[in-house]
Amino acid sequence: MPIAIYAGSFDPITNGHISIIRSGLVAFEKIIVAVLINPGKTPLFSVDERFKMISDALSNEPRIEVDCFDGLLVDYARRRNVQVVLRGLRAVADFEHELKMANMNRHLYQEMETVFIMANDYFYVSSSLIKEAASLGGDVLGMVPKAVAQKLREKFFPQEPCQNKE
Amino acid sequence: MPIAIYAGSFDPITNGHISIIRSGLVAFEKIIVAVLINPGKTPLFSVDERFKMISDALSNEPRIEVDCFDGLLVDYARRRNVQVVLRGLRAVADFEHELKMANMNRHLYQEMETVFIMANDYFYVSSSLIKEAASLGGDVLGMVPKAVAQKLREKFFPQEPCQNKE
Amino acid sequence: MPIAIYAGSFDPITNGHISIIRSGLVAFEKIIVAVLINPGKTPLFSVDERFKMISDALSNEPRIEVDCFDGLLVDYARRRNVQVVLRGLRAVADFEHELKMANMNRHLYQEMETVFIMANDYFYVSSSLIKEAASLGGDVLGMVPKAVAQKLREKFFPQEPCQNKE
Amino acid sequence: MPIAIYAGSFDPITNGHISIIRSGLVAFEKIIVAVLINPGKTPLFSVDERFKMISDALSNEPRIEVDCFDGLLVDYARRRNVQVVLRGLRAVADFEHELKMANMNRHLYQEMETVFIMANDYFYVSSSLIKEAASLGGDVLGMVPKAVAQKLREKFFPQEPCQNKE
Amino acid sequence: MPIAIYAGSFDPITNGHISIIRSGLVAFEKIIVAVLINPGKTPLFSVDERFKMISDALSNEPRIEVDCFDGLLVDYARRRNVQVVLRGLRAVADFEHELKMANMNRHLYQEMETVFIMANDYFYVSSSLIKEAASLGGDVLGMVPKAVAQKLREKFFPQEPCQNKE
Amino acid sequence: MPIAIYAGSFDPITNGHISIIRSGLVAFEKIIVAVLINPGKTPLFSVDERFKMISDALSNEPRIEVDCFDGLLVDYARRRNVQVVLRGLRAVADFEHELKMANMNRHLYQEMETVFIMANDYFYVSSSLIKEAASLGGDVLGMVPKAVAQKLREKFFPQEPCQNKE
Repeated sequence: MPIAIYAGSFDPITNGHISIIRSGLVAFEKIIVAVLINPGKTPLFSVDERFKMISDALSNEPRIEVDCFDGLLVDYARRRNVQVVLRGLRAVADFEHELKMANMNRHLYQEMETVFIMANDYFYVSSSLIKEAASLGGDVLGMVPKAVAQKLREKFFPQEPCQNKE
Repeated sequence: MPIAIYAGSFDPITNGHISIIRSGLVAFEKIIVAVLINPGKTPLFSVDERFKMISDALSNEPRIEVDCFDGLLVDYARRRNVQVVLRGLRAVADFEHELKMANMNRHLYQEMETVFIMANDYFYVSSSLIKEAASLGGDVLGMVPKAVAQKLREKFFPQEPCQNKE
Repeated sequence: MPIAIYAGSFDPITNGHISIIRSGLVAFEKIIVAVLINPGKTPLFSVDERFKMISDALSNEPRIEVDCFDGLLVDYARRRNVQVVLRGLRAVADFEHELKMANMNRHLYQEMETVFIMANDYFYVSSSLIKEAASLGGDVLGMVPKAVAQKLREKFFPQEPCQNKE
Repeated sequence: MPIAIYAGSFDPITNGHISIIRSGLVAFEKIIVAVLINPGKTPLFSVDERFKMISDALSNEPRIEVDCFDGLLVDYARRRNVQVVLRGLRAVADFEHELKMANMNRHLYQEMETVFIMANDYFYVSSSLIKEAASLGGDVLGMVPKAVAQKLREKFFPQEPCQNKE
Repeated sequence: MPIAIYAGSFDPITNGHISIIRSGLVAFEKIIVAVLINPGKTPLFSVDERFKMISDALSNEPRIEVDCFDGLLVDYARRRNVQVVLRGLRAVADFEHELKMANMNRHLYQEMETVFIMANDYFYVSSSLIKEAASLGGDVLGMVPKAVAQKLREKFFPQEPCQNKE
Repeated sequence: MPIAIYAGSFDPITNGHISIIRSGLVAFEKIIVAVLINPGKTPLFSVDERFKMISDALSNEPRIEVDCFDGLLVDYARRRNVQVVLRGLRAVADFEHELKMANMNRHLYQEMETVFIMANDYFYVSSSLIKEAASLGGDVLGMVPKAVAQKLREKFFPQEPCQNKE
């Protein structure tokens, strides 16, 4: 029963990620969405916040499990006894990076295979571009789930709710 | 039980194709290797020859089925009731072409997903380059199965066995 | 008053072409859609048919002129006294080819500039892929205007209407 | 009367930028060269210095306006009532990044179009590579206007004029 | 004493080829310019014509040898006892193709190395684009040596001199 | 007698680098492996450590010289009286970057040529990916020489030897 891991920072999850996951559910029985905890980076959202946004966005998908991990993806995959890693692919620059990663991962865990699904680019904008736009007041609804758009506004314009107060 | 179709001309099958198929068996229960019959092209090997070379090369894999089809891949996939198409991916030029094909196929059959596996490029040389080299007397063993290398020699140098005759 | 030429085979015009033209009308006062007559190629549709399909698809755009030309694009641009060529751009492979063409055209006509608009890839599938799909019975509506889809069916399945006759 | 915005950091303006602007003037009535004020980055030159270097380099072009902006480019374009953004394009890596940006900007401001002009690569070297070379004493004349080369020397080797003093 | 082979169709030689050869002479003692005789293709110029155009264009370079070969490049290199193949590289599409070729050649002749020099793209336009432009009456001087431009005119417009006769 | 410089950070040297150097020795009489001292970056290994790891890995190659330099590569090449720079090339992203660098270097030192050798990608993984994997406990043997793998373990897990002590 093939299971796949879909790993990433998900800081935050976007409609592009969700589109890849839904496509992946056509090919796999179950997908583990695994949030990477990277001590070397300062994310915008805490692991708990990212975990919750993913769970909420995919709450109607019983074949999804949300999880966290740190360290090497190959070690996590071994621990979970999963041999397939799912990745989204959109641009040539992605492709190059993914090729290097797949090369590296083959060195580290020969039995693991990486499979790719092409992102529907209508939904595809990277998390970092979305954060940049949101930080400057851009309306990112349509690129992220509604709840994520709301969370981004709260992060970047925390006083905003107060303005509506009185 | 996810099944995937791996379609192509396989004129002839190469070690690159075989490497993709073996990687695909990690992710899928069963793979249908489907030889495209393209009336608009003149292949080097007949469908029967191509079919036999594939079957021989993969005879030790019980989870492989070899089949033929003509017409649109999406129609074949519908007939076979399969929703996953497997593709190998190695170069950026492949990537571009595949992106266009995946786009097209989404228009024609929305429920079908294309998944990609990166070819190990040690084995990766295209069928047409291999045919060109073989036609000029190059030794292509290592790039194709042994039986295929033999068939290529017979195609391009049919008199050769006679020279050893007397 | 900047005018741009948008040249191509348009065999047939697709929704991708139409999307580029509409985007181009934001930047330019007028766009000349110029059908290339290439004696070295055998198109599916005659120049008249292609001309008519373009005119019909863009009949509600007063700032469009449809025209034909043979020979070098730079010579046509000189004759029309136009210094801007508009091109659609979607894939990296396009990009490479366009770079070579732009290089060549700069040699041949220094005052002419080529400007590019990125295709919205929801609509983007090449004419040749569309013809291939249509020739195998694929439904290409959504990728070409309705009248073009009808013309493609008539080309590839001319007897079809008869089957419904009695 | 089509106007285009050509935005960037211009830290400093290079001959590559100037070549794009001159090409753009073939296609557009007027070009607004807009210096992005990015509070998150520490530029080598102040906004005033960058503004002045651009104005000096393009002083003989009456159809150029130099301006500054912060925040989202789409918001600036809306404020200026301009619907066309001009971008230079040279390398495939540029292309990928630009595709993502254009995608994002379409989400944020549907009526805005991005048009691209291929850089003549004789002049094309990025500002950051030029700064790196200049900081190590490389002679960057030919890649930037003469006044900019002088300013770069002053930034990186401020004592130099003193050595000629006595 | 490293010698390199620079092989190609040279149908005809362009200023791009000449630029690569001159750059190659910085790195190598001697370069063999080897014209590929490909029986499967119909060139515009005969092998003799191509040979002569190359010799004329490079007559002032004593470290150049012009030669012809058919069959596999690796077999020719073995016969000549040369282990280095020189290639020009300009576009990403070239790069992909070259990567496949280099892969193939490593299979066929492990001791041979392929080295690449980036073309100065001012001179870089492919032979086939140049032929297409010349066949339509375009002036290709500046992209090919003067004698080659003359030969192209003679091929495509053979009666032309007669028109000036009386 | 052509000599080439192969410059880089080598932080640390990988099997990919070594493969490029060995290929380069087919084309060149001698190769200077030049460690770039970049005061703006904090390397994992000191210049001495990097120098020693390179020397050890290539100790059986008499035609190799290991050296260090700071400042511009072109200035170092001039000082060493060398006109050829050797670079490895594997991915399209590399290619783009290298094209920009080669462009820049041609501006700075016209007589210098950059030649490229395609990396055998079995060995090709970047130093930074290897460091990331090693820092998380991944086994990088096979991607770097044995002595380098040992040094990486000592850097990232300095107490480890102590655990075996008693």
